[in-house]
Amino acid sequence: MAVYTEVSDEDLSQFIAGYDLGALLSVKGIAEGVENTNYLIHTQKGSFVLTLYEKRVNPADLPFFLGLMEHLAGKGVTCPLPVHDRQGNVLGTLSGRPAALVTFLEGVSVRRPAVSHCAALGEALAKLHEAGQGFTIRRQNGLGLKGWRPLYERFAARADEIAPGLASLISEELTYLDAEWPAALPQGVIHADLFPDNVFFLGERIAGLIDFYFACNDAFAYDVAVCLNAWCFEPDFSFNATKGHALLKGYQSARKLSPLERDTLPVLCRGSALRFLLTRGYDWLHTPKDALVKPHDPLDYVRRLKFHRSVSSAQDYGLEAHA
Amino acid sequence: MAVYTEVSDEDLSQFIAGYDLGALLSVKGIAEGVENTNYLIHTQKGSFVLTLYEKRVNPADLPFFLGLMEHLAGKGVTCPLPVHDRQGNVLGTLSGRPAALVTFLEGVSVRRPAVSHCAALGEALAKLHEAGQGFTIRRQNGLGLKGWRPLYERFAARADEIAPGLASLISEELTYLDAEWPAALPQGVIHADLFPDNVFFLGERIAGLIDFYFACNDAFAYDVAVCLNAWCFEPDFSFNATKGHALLKGYQSARKLSPLERDTLPVLCRGSALRFLLTRGYDWLHTPKDALVKPHDPLDYVRRLKFHRSVSSAQDYGLEAHA
Repeated sequence: MAVYTEVSDEDLSQFIAGYDLGALLSVKGIAEGVENTNYLIHTQKGSFVLTLYEKRVNPADLPFFLGLMEHLAGKGVTCPLPVHDRQGNVLGTLSGRPAALVTFLEGVSVRRPAVSHCAALGEALAKLHEAGQGFTIRRQNGLGLKGWRPLYERFAARADEIAPGLASLISEELTYLDAEWPAALPQGVIHADLFPDNVFFLGERIAGLIDFYFACNDAFAYDVAVCLNAWCFEPDFSFNATKGHALLKGYQSARKLSPLERDTLPVLCRGSALRFLLTRGYDWLHTPKDALVKPHDPLDYVRRLKFHRSVSSAQDYGLEAHA
Repeated sequence: MAVYTEVSDEDLSQFIAGYDLGALLSVKGIAEGVENTNYLIHTQKGSFVLTLYEKRVNPADLPFFLGLMEHLAGKGVTCPLPVHDRQGNVLGTLSGRPAALVTFLEGVSVRRPAVSHCAALGEALAKLHEAGQGFTIRRQNGLGLKGWRPLYERFAARADEIAPGLASLISEELTYLDAEWPAALPQGVIHADLFPDNVFFLGERIAGLIDFYFACNDAFAYDVAVCLNAWCFEPDFSFNATKGHALLKGYQSARKLSPLERDTLPVLCRGSALRFLLTRGYDWLHTPKDALVKPHDPLDYVRRLKFHRSVSSAQDYGLEAHA
C-alpha cells in the first residue's frame, strides 16, 4: 500500500499517448497491493490501473502475469485485462520501471467475509483453476514447499525475537511438511494469494479478481488451502466450519476435489499457513520500526497453524463426507 | 500522501447509504494531501472523494472549509463540491473521524509548470479571491505573521541541526518581518497553499482547484506571494521572471493589485518563503527517519528566501512597471 515511484505528468502523458485511449483526464496514486506502485487513471476511454513494477517483482515473470490475465479474461474470468499499446505491447517502461496498463474493475473487497462471500469465492476459485488450462507459459511457485526452508534460513537465527519457541515450531513444521507433502496432486495455474483484499464484490456477487503477482503453477488444492486460511478464520483465529463448508461446496460446484486432494487438505493447510508465517516473519524482522506500512503479525499464522495441527480430517474444514 | 484511517466495507457502505448516490461500486485509498485520509469512491451516481479528517485538522474549522468550497463552487470556481447527505449535512462521522464527501474533479497536476500554466494559475487565483467575497464564516491564518514566531520557538534550539546558521537566519528574518509587514492590505479569503499539487489542468486550461484546508482570511497579495514561491522558481532555485510576469499578468487580468500590494510584494514573498521554511523545518526535525513520507527539504525555502532578500522591487518578479 504505497506509491513507491512518482511519475511526472509529462512522462505519464507521453506514456498514455502510446495507447489508443484518448487524452489523460486524471491520475491518482492508489493504495493497492504491497509490492508495486499503482495509479488509477481516467482517460477519455474509461478507467484503468497503471502498475509500475518495483524491485520485488522479477521482470522475467511479467510476461507470465500479464499473459495469464489476458488468457483468463478471454476465458470469462473477470480480472484486469492488460491493454495493448499502439505497437501491440502490454509491457512498457515508465520512470525507469517496467509498467503496464490494465482495465479498472469496479467492486469492493470485504474486510470480514460472510458465509455467502466464502461460497462465491470457492466457486470463483474453481472456475479460475479451470480457466487457467491451456495457458502455456509456466512459472514455478517460488513460495512453495521448496522455497520455505531457504526463506526460513534467512531469519532462523532471529525467529525467537518474534516469539519465544517460534524457531523450533517452524523447524518441526518444515520437517513434517517435507515428509508428508503429497507429490501427485492435480496441478495447474493457481492464484496463490487470493485473500479478501484481492477479490471485489458487488453485493454478494464476485465482480473481479485482482493481483495475480504470486500466480504460478502448483497444486490446485494448495490454492484451496490458501483460501481456507485467508477466508474462514474469525478475528479470534477460531476456524468457522460453516464458512469452510460454503467455500468447499462452492469450489466443488465447479470442480470436484479428487480423493487425494480431499485427504491431504489438512497438510496443505499447514503448508499454506507456514508459507504466510514465513513471509510475515521475514518482513516483521526486516521492516523499519517507523515505516508507515506496518508488517502483518506473523503470529496470526501460528494461531492458524495450531488449528490445522489439531485437525483429524478434511471434514473438520466443513468438507462433506460424501460430496 | 497516505491512508491513515482504514475504513471497513460495512462502515463505508452504511455511510454511503446516507447519501442519495446509489450503490457503492468501488473505493480506493488515494495518495492525495498530506494531512488527511482520502478515498476515491465510485457510486452509481459518479465519482467522489471521501475525506476523513485526521488529527492535524481542527474539527471546529470544518464548517469553514466545507462551507467555503460550497460558496466558491456556487460562484463558478471549479473546486470540490461537498455533497449533502439525506439529512442535508455535509459533515458526517466515519471510523471515528469527521468525514465529508465531495465531488471528484478530473484533471492532472503539473510537476513542472510552464509559463502558460503560471498565467492560468494567476488568473484563477484572482478569480478565487473575488469569488470568496460574501462568504461569512471567518478563519484566522494560524500560519500567518503572528504564528511564525511561536512555530519557530518549537524547534529553534535544534534549527542549526538542519543547516549551520539557520537559527540566526530565521531570527533575523522574523525581526525584519515584524518591523516591515504591511498592515493595511486588502483582505479576504485566501487559499494559502495553492501549490501545483493542488491545481488540476486539462491541457493548459485549469480544470480544478483542490485542498482548501489551509484557506483562511488574510491579505490577497500574500496568496500571490505564496504562488510566486510555489510556481515560479526553477529546480535550481533561480527565479523565472517570465513565469512571474505571466502569473502576475494573469492575476491582474481579473483583479488589479493596489499600489501598496505592488510595493510590498517583496516583503510578502519573504514572509511566504519563511512560512514554508518554518513548517518544513519543524517537520524535518520531527519526522521519523524511516517514514515512507519523506519530509520536504526546508533548505529549498532558504534558497528562495535569499532571492527575495536580493530583490529591489516588485518589477524583479516580472510585474509590469505601469500595469
